[in-house]
Amino acid sequence: MRIALAQLNYTIGDFDLNTAKIIETIQTCRLKGADLVVFAELSVCGYPPRDFLEFDDFIQKSHSAIDTIAAHCTDIGAIVGAPSRNPDSKGKNLFNSAWLLADGKVQSLAHKALLPTYDIFDEYRYFEPNRNYECITFKGVKIALTICEDIWNLVPDPLYISNPMDVLAAQNPDIMINIAASPFNYDQQKTRLEILRANTSQYKIPLVYVNQVGAQTELLFDGNSCVLDSGSNQVASCKAFDEDICTVDFDPEQKTLTSELTVKSKNSSKAGLIHDALVMGIRDYFAKMGFSKAILGLSGGIDSAVTLALASEALGNKNVYAVLLPSEYSSDHSISDAVTLAKNLDCKYDTISIAEGYNTLHDSLLPYFKELPFSVAEENIQARVRAILLMALANKFGYILLNTSNKSEAAVGYGTLYGDMCGGISVLGDVYKTEVYELAHFINREKEIIPTNSIVKPPSAELRPGQKDSDSLPDYDILDKILYNYIEMRKSPADLLESGFDEAIVKRVLRMVNTNEWKRHQTPPILRVSPKAFGQGRRMPIVGRYLA
Amino acid sequence: MRIALAQLNYTIGDFDLNTAKIIETIQTCRLKGADLVVFAELSVCGYPPRDFLEFDDFIQKSHSAIDTIAAHCTDIGAIVGAPSRNPDSKGKNLFNSAWLLADGKVQSLAHKALLPTYDIFDEYRYFEPNRNYECITFKGVKIALTICEDIWNLVPDPLYISNPMDVLAAQNPDIMINIAASPFNYDQQKTRLEILRANTSQYKIPLVYVNQVGAQTELLFDGNSCVLDSGSNQVASCKAFDEDICTVDFDPEQKTLTSELTVKSKNSSKAGLIHDALVMGIRDYFAKMGFSKAILGLSGGIDSAVTLALASEALGNKNVYAVLLPSEYSSDHSISDAVTLAKNLDCKYDTISIAEGYNTLHDSLLPYFKELPFSVAEENIQARVRAILLMALANKFGYILLNTSNKSEAAVGYGTLYGDMCGGISVLGDVYKTEVYELAHFINREKEIIPTNSIVKPPSAELRPGQKDSDSLPDYDILDKILYNYIEMRKSPADLLESGFDEAIVKRVLRMVNTNEWKRHQTPPILRVSPKAFGQGRRMPIVGRYLA
Repeated sequence: MRIALAQLNYTIGDFDLNTAKIIETIQTCRLKGADLVVFAELSVCGYPPRDFLEFDDFIQKSHSAIDTIAAHCTDIGAIVGAPSRNPDSKGKNLFNSAWLLADGKVQSLAHKALLPTYDIFDEYRYFEPNRNYECITFKGVKIALTICEDIWNLVPDPLYISNPMDVLAAQNPDIMINIAASPFNYDQQKTRLEILRANTSQYKIPLVYVNQVGAQTELLFDGNSCVLDSGSNQVASCKAFDEDICTVDFDPEQKTLTSELTVKSKNSSKAGLIHDALVMGIRDYFAKMGFSKAILGLSGGIDSAVTLALASEALGNKNVYAVLLPSEYSSDHSISDAVTLAKNLDCKYDTISIAEGYNTLHDSLLPYFKELPFSVAEENIQARVRAILLMALANKFGYILLNTSNKSEAAVGYGTLYGDMCGGISVLGDVYKTEVYELAHFINREKEIIPTNSIVKPPSAELRPGQKDSDSLPDYDILDKILYNYIEMRKSPADLLESGFDEAIVKRVLRMVNTNEWKRHQTPPILRVSPKAFGQGRRMPIVGRYLA
Repeated sequence: MRIALAQLNYTIGDFDLNTAKIIETIQTCRLKGADLVVFAELSVCGYPPRDFLEFDDFIQKSHSAIDTIAAHCTDIGAIVGAPSRNPDSKGKNLFNSAWLLADGKVQSLAHKALLPTYDIFDEYRYFEPNRNYECITFKGVKIALTICEDIWNLVPDPLYISNPMDVLAAQNPDIMINIAASPFNYDQQKTRLEILRANTSQYKIPLVYVNQVGAQTELLFDGNSCVLDSGSNQVASCKAFDEDICTVDFDPEQKTLTSELTVKSKNSSKAGLIHDALVMGIRDYFAKMGFSKAILGLSGGIDSAVTLALASEALGNKNVYAVLLPSEYSSDHSISDAVTLAKNLDCKYDTISIAEGYNTLHDSLLPYFKELPFSVAEENIQARVRAILLMALANKFGYILLNTSNKSEAAVGYGTLYGDMCGGISVLGDVYKTEVYELAHFINREKEIIPTNSIVKPPSAELRPGQKDSDSLPDYDILDKILYNYIEMRKSPADLLESGFDEAIVKRVLRMVNTNEWKRHQTPPILRVSPKAFGQGRRMPIVGRYLA
């Protein structure tokens, strides 16, 4: 039996588009001689559909799409993902299901049992967990059909009390098929392959794994669909960060797999992975929002430089507009570094001084500010004048503003709300400052695109004379380590002191993180590249006083 | 046995504060002759703790607090709420538990079985559901001790497959005690009383129900703790929207209840309830963030007028600062209506023209805008200049900016991001425009506070000459009905057409709602008064294309 892995990029809620794409892929795979085409979890409606699932009309549309797709499955079978209705009046109304389509109609369904409800996942919000596990049969092949999380419980401290594959394995299936929507983070490819191998190793049968690809706002799906044989060897794999189809031939007698293709080699450095993920994230955000052009403020610093380089790669250099917005506190090198970068990338750029706007607004406030000293109020006016100018150009000409804040700044609230924290999407909000430097080096791996001076100079917001980030913050190599341990690892202050960090710095950093939830609440969605990003995956009470 | 209902306002993560408050209340209740004092769900750490629960240190601190409180329970018992560790290595690591403390130590625990994971609730994100139900005994009284959602499954289409009270009732308890964190919406008092009565009616034993009170950012807890006898009569109740303690005497032989107090009479009109909830919401947000003073832009329109009146009641008129920010498009009556209101409330107010700021910024952009016609770009500059001025005053003098957008605007994206959509907290973001008028009438119930002219004039953003909301939007009485049916009731376009709404208007409104998720993503937290508010309770994919 020839099985095709269809790794596609879906648009949430666009049933016409997804259905057409799935049908077209079925036809392509038919030409490749496939018997069965496997699509990703909730492929029909796109993942994650979130609260659209609460609309009965959305479920109806999913089912109409299934019928349309099934009509094209005559001499070929397909497995697609879509919600299904729970016939029991008790429990949630829906299942998250895998549908086997063949002979022009729905043949069987398998429901997801383990519903991830942590980090960015909310599946128990919508779905009833499956409690009845049964293998399905297609062309004489007995398939243990599961959905994503269902095969992720083979760990020492399991999140769920049951293991669906244990029950399915007892029915002696020939092969496992898992349809998934497993998002990227820089550790995920390794973790995922380990979990897939734990399954083939435990159950001694091959595994076909089909993931979706593409970005859904902040969630980046890397694809990397693959096939493992019963000896846990990878015999085929799809591309990372792009749509792809691959096929394998499965011999149910011998339980052997052969593949037309070798396993694709992939970028594996952390900076390289983050780079590829962010480029896909920018590209898909624009494509799915129906925009093509980005604008951003180019300061001469490292964050906006890296953002511009990534956007230029994602959207094309002719679709990216850099605006230099100097103030009286901007240094000469800031302007020249920014211009050099824009020229290196061959992007359109302009320079608009914020001095006049700042002075006029400050004059309007003088009767109230009187003789009070220069403070964060004046700093913020500058950042907000920049935002007004960028947004005005965006509104006038149809650009989307890219946010250039990094994760270190977002963590400690080192940024101006409604100023440099503006934007349609945050490109670097899940990348610590020290990782931004790694990205810069990766971007410069073949030639100098980002000027060395932007990389080597001390970071500064340039909102007052001679200001440096290090005036207000610990050095980034210390800060980022504390942040990583607190945010990603959920370490306590006591743990951090034990690791050798200074007590006063730890206390100050944790306090800054916890008292800035209100600021992060209003930031744009952040492209997620780490296992713990700000946004949907990290939900904190704004008025909480823990370590604050 | 005398049981005290302790309805308190907790601060999430402030263990010292919550512990001190609980111990002080135990001492107060001891003086009232109480045998048992009952506190709310997760009272020790505050509800909802959200992802603080992922920090082991947070759980340790909860347990230390329990030990401290238990030491004060010598001649008296207490039931408090706190997370507990799941001893099983399978399943989530925590339970959401009720702890019976007496004789100076922990006597027994009851874990929550039904974990609400919908709307604003995320409990399965953190907790393993309880599967073993056992009554607890205190001073010879057998208690069916449950937590909030555990008693909410007695409905025709139940969300959960099991009913913990069915199992507990079979053990013949004398009384039910339910500790809760049940948030307000304008329907909730009625719904909640119905559910409590369904339980007393089903199990024929009395029910002691203790809710928390106070606001946790956007979530407003109204309290309304109460006691029902086995005949479903309310024999005692605590206040709405305020801390309160009440006691009842329970005779386990006769299963009768007597109360020192009558049931408190409460505001029951929808506008009255929303008013009280919002006043509490503003007050607690400021108190818990450590601020006391609010600033807002006063336009002369109804939304900012109602917001100012509510803030003035919540924080005191001397703590509220109104700023009039007229442009060349502002009408004379806008300014005079705003001034009249500020004088009626005796609030500080100032007038700062935005004309100079607008003109200067527009001049900076002229080389790029050239001869292009006036557009939304120019409208937004005005709204954003207002935001800069308000935020600068807030930053300079320590105010929090109040957002004055209503739910109708938030729904259709009729507002300027980083302009009038700014603020620390949104007061009216869950109140439709037509409901804002009802609130205005409620505020004016005894005398004219909000000028009649602000109520009767046609709504306008005044961002271009002669502009009216009705130029861009359907009339609010139509718009709000469509929005309510789509947002609160999750009706489909077909349902709406069947209800008689115009097809073109329905399509346009639903499209506006669904294509403005990106804007709502960056708005402040919205005080929640309806069953379906924008924010945590409504999670939509930004890049989704459903009905878009």
